[in-house]
Amino acid sequence: MSEADRPDAPLEVAVFNAGGNWPRPFRDMDGEFLEGMWRVNALAGFFFAKAALDVMLPRQRGVILFTGASGSLRGKAMFGGFAQAKAALRALAQSASREFGPQGIHVAHVVIDGGIDGDRLNAFLPGMKDEKGPDGMLDPDGIAENYWTLFQQPRSAWTHELDVRPWVETW
Amino acid sequence: MSEADRPDAPLEVAVFNAGGNWPRPFRDMDGEFLEGMWRVNALAGFFFAKAALDVMLPRQRGVILFTGASGSLRGKAMFGGFAQAKAALRALAQSASREFGPQGIHVAHVVIDGGIDGDRLNAFLPGMKDEKGPDGMLDPDGIAENYWTLFQQPRSAWTHELDVRPWVETW
Amino acid sequence: MSEADRPDAPLEVAVFNAGGNWPRPFRDMDGEFLEGMWRVNALAGFFFAKAALDVMLPRQRGVILFTGASGSLRGKAMFGGFAQAKAALRALAQSASREFGPQGIHVAHVVIDGGIDGDRLNAFLPGMKDEKGPDGMLDPDGIAENYWTLFQQPRSAWTHELDVRPWVETW
Amino acid sequence: MSEADRPDAPLEVAVFNAGGNWPRPFRDMDGEFLEGMWRVNALAGFFFAKAALDVMLPRQRGVILFTGASGSLRGKAMFGGFAQAKAALRALAQSASREFGPQGIHVAHVVIDGGIDGDRLNAFLPGMKDEKGPDGMLDPDGIAENYWTLFQQPRSAWTHELDVRPWVETW
Repeated sequence: MSEADRPDAPLEVAVFNAGGNWPRPFRDMDGEFLEGMWRVNALAGFFFAKAALDVMLPRQRGVILFTGASGSLRGKAMFGGFAQAKAALRALAQSASREFGPQGIHVAHVVIDGGIDGDRLNAFLPGMKDEKGPDGMLDPDGIAENYWTLFQQPRSAWTHELDVRPWVETW
Repeated sequence: MSEADRPDAPLEVAVFNAGGNWPRPFRDMDGEFLEGMWRVNALAGFFFAKAALDVMLPRQRGVILFTGASGSLRGKAMFGGFAQAKAALRALAQSASREFGPQGIHVAHVVIDGGIDGDRLNAFLPGMKDEKGPDGMLDPDGIAENYWTLFQQPRSAWTHELDVRPWVETW
Repeated sequence: MSEADRPDAPLEVAVFNAGGNWPRPFRDMDGEFLEGMWRVNALAGFFFAKAALDVMLPRQRGVILFTGASGSLRGKAMFGGFAQAKAALRALAQSASREFGPQGIHVAHVVIDGGIDGDRLNAFLPGMKDEKGPDGMLDPDGIAENYWTLFQQPRSAWTHELDVRPWVETW
Repeated sequence: MSEADRPDAPLEVAVFNAGGNWPRPFRDMDGEFLEGMWRVNALAGFFFAKAALDVMLPRQRGVILFTGASGSLRGKAMFGGFAQAKAALRALAQSASREFGPQGIHVAHVVIDGGIDGDRLNAFLPGMKDEKGPDGMLDPDGIAENYWTLFQQPRSAWTHELDVRPWVETW
């Protein structure tokens, strides 16, 4: 895709939100599991950013938003597969932010810490919502509001990283 | 101040923004300098939060926003006095967030990284604005927009910490 | 104290290990409590380092070791008083390391994470040792060994920060 | 390899030190480059640890040491390829440490920050040694001494992470 192809609709924002968190004991992981995690969370994020940059850099404007998790910041027991992939994505996001910020591209990384109150998690862990109590899971609209805010930030005051968690979440 | 005194205007948000960053070689600092830094940046933040909590906790709602800096995260050479005070404030903010979040109080910490395009800095370093170039300093309105966003976050998706810097800032 | 006073025994290493960790709810803390914590843990560390630097800098050699804790890195609920003081000390240690490293002074910060198997804690929490199991508390000799290692590091390979915790400690 | 094969020489320590740091602009990287970096630095470290654990866990003792870099902690511009791989390795090391520490296996991560005074770097950047000055590069023996120290730590006082840099290195 190029600007020439779509002069009517320049790309203003690109949100990367692939990935899934599957715990597994360290010795039960294999290369396929780790590589799959890394491909979905980190490598796909790289290709995604590169494609967005191709379109955004000529106009020297655009916003690229990556979705992270608490595993982006540290590797807990049983979560090494997810954490290594999310940590890799975070390093890529930081690197892209530092290289392309001064070229007008806003790159940010959102650390989602908590269960998301959406179809996937509610189907997989149906008891979680009651256990967490009112507003104890992340409302997708509440998350989206933060992406919207990042998108609207003027270039004089850009955020690279913010965390988001429900009020009752232990951290 | 108490809710009884002002039933018409309950306290919804409290923003702490005291402090100043004065570099000084380590051995040129003395107890008075360090204590002054700590009192203005950290201890005042504690008293501020405590007073706000007195009013907010009975209603189980309210937002307390602390202003940090890159020095909140690490101590650079010549900036030990400021960094120790800002690091102390950050630890207090984290501790308050963890204790009072589940009681309905949103505590957040904003890491300001860059020069603020306001009267104080422009008077003190008049050449900075030209040197940094267009939008190279933090616009106070842009900063304020982030505080406003934090204030509006629903309790299902609270941010504790975010950074804010101009697009051209090296980090 | 000066080198002139003790030409026979130049100061090679200075270890700062003051402080105590007293949890307290945020709103039960007062200025006196916070200031006491800060004075013992942070300000005393500054004076200590300054006095050591006076003696070490003329010879362009010497090692200053600060004792930290997990609270140095983040503020948990109920531990804001301790965390703000330890975070302040850590910022000072980083700042001193960056300023004086190139002048030949090795400044390091040891993050102690776990209960110390010494008289104080065993008297205060007599059941902890059994609860933690064999080697579940930090052996003072084991801690000391790390300080000794830091002291012996050649200037081509200095450590600024390391953590130390018992094998069974959750982190 | 198994204990049965070598009853005379049980595996006590395993040191992982693969990898190389090749800067590259973000958009000049491709999937092959990123995957190669990840395979050498992160995936190989996983297989290495798994093989060592197979031998160490039955005896409930052993030490696994991973080599990191400043890129393990953050992604600088031009260094995203290396940083994503090293960040992934660090997350794996943390995860393994938390899972296997209580089973008697000591897992640690050494953050090497600076140029290593060895054949590779001296051939590649022959002017670096003079530029950095005396002891301005990391002496391999000095690095090794730290691995030796980690290996000897008693289980009551284990280090998970330490940094190592020359005295004149800016950080």
